[in-house]
Formats: sequence, C-alpha cells, structure tokens
Amino acid sequence: MKKIINKPENYVKEMLEGIYTAHPDLVRYTQDDVHCLVSRYKKEGKVGIATGGGSGHLPLFLGYVGKGMLDGCSVGDVFQSPSPEQMLAVTKEIDSGAGVLYIYGNYNGDIFNFDMAAEQADFEEDIRVESVVAGEDVASPAPEPGRKNTRRGVAGIVFVYKCAGAAAEAMQSLDEVKRIAEKAAANVRTMGVALTPCVVPRVGKPGFDIAEDEMEIGMGIHGETGIRRGKIETADKITEEILEKILEDLPYQPGEEAAVLVNGLGATTLDEQYIVTGKIHEILKGRGIKVHRYYVGEYATSLEMAGLSISLLKLDDELKAYLDAPAHTPFFVQV
Amino acid sequence: MKKIINKPENYVKEMLEGIYTAHPDLVRYTQDDVHCLVSRYKKEGKVGIATGGGSGHLPLFLGYVGKGMLDGCSVGDVFQSPSPEQMLAVTKEIDSGAGVLYIYGNYNGDIFNFDMAAEQADFEEDIRVESVVAGEDVASPAPEPGRKNTRRGVAGIVFVYKCAGAAAEAMQSLDEVKRIAEKAAANVRTMGVALTPCVVPRVGKPGFDIAEDEMEIGMGIHGETGIRRGKIETADKITEEILEKILEDLPYQPGEEAAVLVNGLGATTLDEQYIVTGKIHEILKGRGIKVHRYYVGEYATSLEMAGLSISLLKLDDELKAYLDAPAHTPFFVQV
Repeated sequence: MKKIINKPENYVKEMLEGIYTAHPDLVRYTQDDVHCLVSRYKKEGKVGIATGGGSGHLPLFLGYVGKGMLDGCSVGDVFQSPSPEQMLAVTKEIDSGAGVLYIYGNYNGDIFNFDMAAEQADFEEDIRVESVVAGEDVASPAPEPGRKNTRRGVAGIVFVYKCAGAAAEAMQSLDEVKRIAEKAAANVRTMGVALTPCVVPRVGKPGFDIAEDEMEIGMGIHGETGIRRGKIETADKITEEILEKILEDLPYQPGEEAAVLVNGLGATTLDEQYIVTGKIHEILKGRGIKVHRYYVGEYATSLEMAGLSISLLKLDDELKAYLDAPAHTPFFVQV
Repeated sequence: MKKIINKPENYVKEMLEGIYTAHPDLVRYTQDDVHCLVSRYKKEGKVGIATGGGSGHLPLFLGYVGKGMLDGCSVGDVFQSPSPEQMLAVTKEIDSGAGVLYIYGNYNGDIFNFDMAAEQADFEEDIRVESVVAGEDVASPAPEPGRKNTRRGVAGIVFVYKCAGAAAEAMQSLDEVKRIAEKAAANVRTMGVALTPCVVPRVGKPGFDIAEDEMEIGMGIHGETGIRRGKIETADKITEEILEKILEDLPYQPGEEAAVLVNGLGATTLDEQYIVTGKIHEILKGRGIKVHRYYVGEYATSLEMAGLSISLLKLDDELKAYLDAPAHTPFFVQV
C-alpha cells in the first residue's frame, strides 16, 4: 500500500482535521464530532441542504459545503455510511426555519441511515426534512417505470448540489428546492471507466485485480462491477462508447444544451481528462448538441483509482440559471 | 502504460485542444500554434507575465493563465522546453506597452530558450523583457552566495505567479513587478516525496524503478534524484523531515507568517494531502509560526506520480496583500 498516512484507523479523523485546518473561514464541525461538517455561512430563513456518505471520494462530499451549494455533510469511514445520529447533528445545525433537504447517492446504507435521521429530525426536533436520492450511473440497471431508482449515484450528483444550492441561495421554498434537485437528478447521466483498483487504508490491499493491459467500462466508484472488461482502448474509442450509452439513455434533440463534467477518479492526469474533453466536444457537435459549460478535474474520486467518468446534464433555461450562479466552497469556486 | 490516450505523439496537442474547448472564455492560442496559450483578458498598459516549460505538470503552467496571474504561456512536449519562437509569439501577443516579465523554473533548456526569446523580443520587436528564474527545491544544492541559483523550480513557483500577477494587475511597473517576483521567489522553499514513478507517453515505461515499500525524499518533478531513498514512513515522519529541511534553509522567527502549499504530484489522494496539512499545522504552531493561508490540492504534478510536496512562502505585509488579491484562471479562482 503506497500511501502517505499514519495509522489506518486514524485516516478519516486526521483527514477531517486537515480540512478544518486548511479552510477555517469556510467550514467547522458540530457536536464535537469532526465527521459532522457544516458551513460557516448561514442565512436566516434559507433552506438547508445536507449530504453525506462514505469517505474516500474527495472533493465529494465535504468539499462542496460552503456558500451557494451545501450547508452540511456527515461522512463515515472510507466507503462507509455515517450514522443517523451524525446526519441528525448536521441537520439540527443547518436548519434555520425553512427545513432541510437531503441530497445523497443511491446506496442502501445511506438511504437507511438518512431516512432514520429525517424521521428523528421531524419527530424530535420538528424540522421538516425532504430527500432526493441521486442515481445516474447508466452502467447500473435502469429503474422500471414507476419503480424506485436502482442506479448508483456517482459524479453527476455535483450538478444536483449546484442547482439545488443555487435555488436555496435564491431563497426558494423547501418544495421548490426539492423540485429543482429532482429535476437536475432526472436530467443527469454518468458513466465511467476504471484502469486500476484503489486500496482502502484499513484493508491494505486492492479491492480487485485487473490486468496491466485491461480496463473496465462502467465500474462504480467503490469498485462495483461495470458493463464489460477488455483491453485498454484509445481515448477516442472509450469516449465514444461512454457517450453512446449516455445519449441512448437520455437522448438529446439537435439544438438542446448540456453541461459536461469530465471527472478524474484519482490517479488519472488532467492531460488525459482534457484529451477526452476534446473528443466529447467533437461528438456532441456532430449531433448538434451545444455545450454550455465544461467542468474538468477531480470532482468525485475513488481514492487513488486510475480512470475517469463523463457526466452530461441536460439544460433548460431554469437549470442553466442555477448552474451559472456563483458558489464558494473549498473545492468549487464559481464567480 | 495505463493511460486514457490516443497516439502518444498527439498527446500534448490533444490535451491543449481540450483546454481551449473547456475554457473558451478564459484562454485562446496565438500564431495558429496551440502551444502558445494567452489570456483573453487584456488590460492596456499592464505588464504582461509569461511562463513556459514542459507539459505533464498540469495545472502548471497553462492553468494559471487568466486574470490576476499570468497572461501567457508556451509549452513543449512532455517534460520538454518550448522553442524560443513559441515564447516570442506569446510575448508579442501579451505585450501592451509596459513590457513583459518571464517567470519560469530553473531548468537549462528553458533558460536557454527563454533568454533567446527575450533577446529577439528586444531587438526585433522593441519589447522590453525581464526574467525571474524560480528555483526553490531545498532537495537540490543551495547556490553559493553571489552565484547563480542552482536549485530546481517546483510547485512554489505558483506563489511567485500569484504575487507577481497581483502586482501587475495593480498596474505596477515592470521593474516593480520583477522586484515582487524576485522577493516571492527568494522567500519560498519546497521539498517533496515520491512514492511511484510516472510514465512519459512517448516513452511508454516508468522513468525509474522504486520498490513497493519504498519512497524517495526530495525527488524532483521530472524524477530527478532526491536526498535519500528508504522504506515508506508515516505521514507524520515524512512531514517532519520535509519541514525540518525547509525551516533549516529559511528559518522563521516566532510570530512570522507563512502561506503553505500542500501539492499532490498526481496519484496521491486529497485525503493524504489533508493528513499532511494537519501535521504541518501542529509543527508550525509549535514553532510559533502563523499560517496565513493554506492551499491544498494538485498545483504542479508530475503526470501520475504518487507523492506530494510542501511549499512555504514567508510573508510580510506586502506579499500578503498580493497573495490575497483575487484571481481567476482555469485552475485558480480566488475571490
């Protein structure tokens, strides 16, 4: 395990302490628990937005707490859900009378714990909580019509945070912020490719094996099995395959607009992410799809996994305005 | 070689095209050469600042061209210097009558080519060019008093860009912007640790071998030999060793202030960078050194090398004001 760490059991605690050290003007923790991170920015009467999930995905989730995006976040150990009590602590701290929206990825542990936190907030604290569960990985099975979403939540959730955060900042009601979050979640699609596994510090060895000349298309951000494994192909071919799946799942008419997120999973260079960006542009242009904005970089990682994901958010004027609004968090500054 | 690329010989060109695709509002190229990147922001009478160097270090160098930092940048192939002609093309494009300052890292190829570009700019274009060569890696030999700097330039150059860029934005003269760049360069120190090698795409294999349980303290960002190789130690020990070398080289009095940059070299997680940040804080606090600002993330990489570097910039009120000024580039947004 080639990592610059101390004892694996202190990994998350020490990482969190580093975040508070580096960004004292933006974030702090509550309830004497470093796993319960809240924004220093508070606006009376604004809907609070909280997220949560396992550690190991920085800048997801903690890095998006600040102004114009999220108000709080609870995290668990690496790839582990935080507890209901931790999410409740965050909820109490960020509520300022307008209720709280939970936005988180579609994983069973998180759903179970955050539903429990939401109930407790309602019964014990009289805080109204609504939830939006984001799941947009087209490599996981599509939900049947009218049934619960069965897709994993991956990097596209950043678009949901951004749009909902801007709606809350614009002092929209909880119902309206929830509607925007649901709309963004319904219009985003992601798929990725992994080249190497990552090592969970407490485990000390890779989560799976993959040959030196192989890649896995559609792998999840905890190493969940993807669509297919095969020889590494060119950036152009990989980009074509991913975009085809995304555009098949949520087709665009010529003239429609998208925001594009090219997300590095951890060890893949920005160079490679930009090579893929160029190819995305060529393909979308060929289909008459206009790109309103590109985001390129590490937005949701899987520790030091090599690979990347592509997310497309279909835009209308409403989502575009919220996407373009300013935000200021440790990892997302838009002016 | 586990990379998402097309033909290695197109690597840099395609990467650059991706940058222009993703940031059309901030940057463009000149002279029909994608290697010659300039800011879309131009202010009449402002000193222009240019940098350059090899590709493979993103966000260095290209990512800092925009408003309040750099005005232009020429890059060569991976780890290769751009040509004098390319630097001259950038120089001509960014000059707006107040002259141009070159700020670049202390590498022979760059010095040779940029000195030639500066001479041509002067003789052929009547543009006054001054140069500041930044070299602050305490793992490379210290210059003898009064002799040329013999140290490698690494991540600390970002502080030099930031301070000089803010001085230029404040409409200081070329001499004054140069003085600020020299002052920042004289007050910054960096040292790093590498855990794995990286692979230059055209070469196709790692630049050096290092055992599965080994690290190299003080390695340069092109794989230059460091101070010592040994078994991987804890984050705390590594941080202590690096900080000791830095503080020995440029001592601080209790009460003096620093800006700290914790820089990932490519494959090292933000988690690890924050763990190191926490330890830095503890050590500096113990010595009575106040940290004015932390920057944590990937600022100057070595492709997909695992490892990180720590840079300290000693601050006085003048440098602090320039460091705190706003800036807006593809990779550095400060409000």
